[in-house]
Amino acid sequence: MLAIEQYQQHFAAYLSAQQIGKDPENLYAPIRYILTLGGKRMRPVLTLMAADVFDCSFQKALPAAMAVETFHNFSLVHDDIMDDAPLRRGKETVHEKWDLNAGILSGDAMLILAYQYFEQYEPAIFRDLAKLFSKTALEVCEGQQWDVDFETRDDVTIPEYLKMIEYKTAVLVGAAMQMGAIIAETSAQNAQLIYDFGRYLGIAFQLQDDYLDVFGDVATFGKQIGGDIIENKKTYLYLKAMAFSDHAQTEQLRHLYSIQPTDNRDKIASVAAIFNQTGAATATKQAIHDYTMKAFDTLRALQIADDKKAALRTFGENLMERKV
Amino acid sequence: MLAIEQYQQHFAAYLSAQQIGKDPENLYAPIRYILTLGGKRMRPVLTLMAADVFDCSFQKALPAAMAVETFHNFSLVHDDIMDDAPLRRGKETVHEKWDLNAGILSGDAMLILAYQYFEQYEPAIFRDLAKLFSKTALEVCEGQQWDVDFETRDDVTIPEYLKMIEYKTAVLVGAAMQMGAIIAETSAQNAQLIYDFGRYLGIAFQLQDDYLDVFGDVATFGKQIGGDIIENKKTYLYLKAMAFSDHAQTEQLRHLYSIQPTDNRDKIASVAAIFNQTGAATATKQAIHDYTMKAFDTLRALQIADDKKAALRTFGENLMERKV
Repeated sequence: MLAIEQYQQHFAAYLSAQQIGKDPENLYAPIRYILTLGGKRMRPVLTLMAADVFDCSFQKALPAAMAVETFHNFSLVHDDIMDDAPLRRGKETVHEKWDLNAGILSGDAMLILAYQYFEQYEPAIFRDLAKLFSKTALEVCEGQQWDVDFETRDDVTIPEYLKMIEYKTAVLVGAAMQMGAIIAETSAQNAQLIYDFGRYLGIAFQLQDDYLDVFGDVATFGKQIGGDIIENKKTYLYLKAMAFSDHAQTEQLRHLYSIQPTDNRDKIASVAAIFNQTGAATATKQAIHDYTMKAFDTLRALQIADDKKAALRTFGENLMERKV
Repeated sequence: MLAIEQYQQHFAAYLSAQQIGKDPENLYAPIRYILTLGGKRMRPVLTLMAADVFDCSFQKALPAAMAVETFHNFSLVHDDIMDDAPLRRGKETVHEKWDLNAGILSGDAMLILAYQYFEQYEPAIFRDLAKLFSKTALEVCEGQQWDVDFETRDDVTIPEYLKMIEYKTAVLVGAAMQMGAIIAETSAQNAQLIYDFGRYLGIAFQLQDDYLDVFGDVATFGKQIGGDIIENKKTYLYLKAMAFSDHAQTEQLRHLYSIQPTDNRDKIASVAAIFNQTGAATATKQAIHDYTMKAFDTLRALQIADDKKAALRTFGENLMERKV
């Protein structure tokens, strides 16, 4: 097994060696732009790692890793249109830098390009990868639709919210790892376990994102603190607070989530106080811990060498401590 | 071989038996809506016909036909957003009936659903179908991008225009037929020839669309006459007229394509007159004839029974006479 940074470097080298399209320039320029905006490349790295875990050269997993990263960027481009987001990783989003049409069409092309990377595998592997990919991609669309639906709903339940983040975010993490397992031609049981490992870790990571948005610090989190509160986003913290709050706290939270002040500092502080008072903060930390443990539990049944289990566990710990 | 109407009926029955998604309703309702708006189902019918032509039961080609129709509808939904079109087949477009987000996301889901229909085939067939599909789908995106680009360009050449309509429209007709050939496991040469038959017929059909938009009558054409002229669309007729026109005609045409009068009748009549005077109308009719003959020429080399060649030729003739 290599260090995370080494997988990142190998993937970066592979990505930059890709010749992505020529004509028409207006279709392919946005694709090259978004694919080279950077990011931690966590999903493709997990595909490479998973191949190594099951004793297959990570090199063989590079095309599948590229498919995963291309799909992830497709979803970013289309989501940014739907969220009307001006910036992505500090740079202009595709529909801002070009226009709506370029965002839609280059996104569509990326979804197709993702499938094409699987063509480098033999028929049986190709079919397994493409099947897993289609199932996952459809779930990501469903998760995105729930996220859109939840914006205008007041009765979202905790199980519904968990299913939304599972589909929108976690299944792709699981699938990225399972692709490594498929390429390594390991047992169906191992493939399922590594999928669950990634999926649980993905849920834990997203819940932690909700938590750190309020209680993190800019240095480790890397995003503006309180962003979700400013946008009145109903996160796990909010749903738990609503479930645990007394009448006065419920009214106060409802009010705070209905206003959009110019200076948000008081609003953020008040919401954070309620999250603490109601026990929502503690419950969220507990849920993060529980899902992380669920991920680590899958390692026990995995049929791989102990040092590889240790490597996966260390990766999970570093991810949850935001060290990678 | 069955009659076209019979293939249409079989496909309609298959389509209406599909259970397309459940939750979230806001994702799948637009998909069911657009897939049941109707249309002649020409592309899926060609997939079924092609399977029969190569002595394979058309029943076996139904999932691939469904993939082709689902992809076609994906492209309609996304194109309608890009063209800001309010109506499709006389009904509201998806982004009008729902909203932009629904149009983008349900389109994305349809592209993925199309791939999933291929999962009903064994690995080697699956791979061949998915490969052909990805190549074709990417070309359709490229064709759409050229079409968008051409709107703001004044120097589009005839070869560029032909390549645009080939990619945007004709390659899917070719691929629909080749899929039938792949499922029938016929020779690579037959598969290529039936692809070319569909592709040439697709180009001829699109050029005829340009022609009938000006010189057709509403009854056979089924659309408003002069629609392209009203929208100042640079069709084959326009490009040929510009190539053949003298200085005065060039200036007149440029002027007519810069105005947007409330009553378009004079404009349409003037443009049609120039198309006739310059010889553009005759040249377009010639091109339609040439591409139709190119399609029929591919039949000669096809290794199939003569009655099947005759059936394909009859289909082509009926299509070009707009009888199907």
